[in-house]
Amino acid sequence: MQRVTNCIVKDPTTNQVLMLKKPRRGWYVAPGGKMEPGEHIRESVMREYKEETGLTLQQPTLNGVFSFVIKDGNQTVQEWMMFTFYCENYTGNLLSTSPEGELEWVDLSEVMQKPMAEGDRRYFKHILSSNEVLYGTFTYTTDFTLLDVTLDPASP
Amino acid sequence: MQRVTNCIVKDPTTNQVLMLKKPRRGWYVAPGGKMEPGEHIRESVMREYKEETGLTLQQPTLNGVFSFVIKDGNQTVQEWMMFTFYCENYTGNLLSTSPEGELEWVDLSEVMQKPMAEGDRRYFKHILSSNEVLYGTFTYTTDFTLLDVTLDPASP
Repeated sequence: MQRVTNCIVKDPTTNQVLMLKKPRRGWYVAPGGKMEPGEHIRESVMREYKEETGLTLQQPTLNGVFSFVIKDGNQTVQEWMMFTFYCENYTGNLLSTSPEGELEWVDLSEVMQKPMAEGDRRYFKHILSSNEVLYGTFTYTTDFTLLDVTLDPASP
Repeated sequence: MQRVTNCIVKDPTTNQVLMLKKPRRGWYVAPGGKMEPGEHIRESVMREYKEETGLTLQQPTLNGVFSFVIKDGNQTVQEWMMFTFYCENYTGNLLSTSPEGELEWVDLSEVMQKPMAEGDRRYFKHILSSNEVLYGTFTYTTDFTLLDVTLDPASP
């Protein structure tokens, strides 16, 4: 089972959120990536965030744990998990080019207007407005149309 | 990849912790069990805890996320994850017999004296003394001798 860790970084001095624009669909995501065998989730997010952005996270906190189910018709073709951290402190300098897409500091007020996967919008909204951990399952088609979502708490 | 959710319940009125004594080795664990496809982790722990104990958890909080690596010599033969919740509120009546072992309310002062997997002792100690989420990787042999442990934070 694939496991992904990522982090929503908000810089409290500029009130901006660091996002990554993926080349394929132009969708914005929180930088992160796949866990490696034997890692724990905080090790993983520290490593992945550094690789993708150049920044070293300081004490990221786990604010979302999600199951993703990918369906082709009635058939589940994939299931994976994502662990989403939140962080307001970091060190280091932003990479000018990221291996995974275009890095962009986005004003907090504009985050929700960016194109992104429908489920991502739901957890971005929660994590940017609440400290309470969000649990959920997102069910998508193979071309990433959101079929179903269960969130706990249901709203931030 | 197998994923397990469990919960450490402490009753604040009696200062006792509900533990499950497994028949095979006589080791004590926090009740819980395997996640089902498509579940999110809080759904899973609510369902498993109810099945194993008869109790319904009220707002359990996620206090530990662990990777487990099982090694046979130099070979990794299994990797799984465990999500450990903590809860002080519940409803319902304790089952007189559990499908998985013997249920026992253990005085808080005696929890650390119970026989248990060496790694479990580490996270029990942390979760019973701190609200901070614990991240870690436990590496075991196939007969559950602890080979290595990485914890973050390193001590509660």
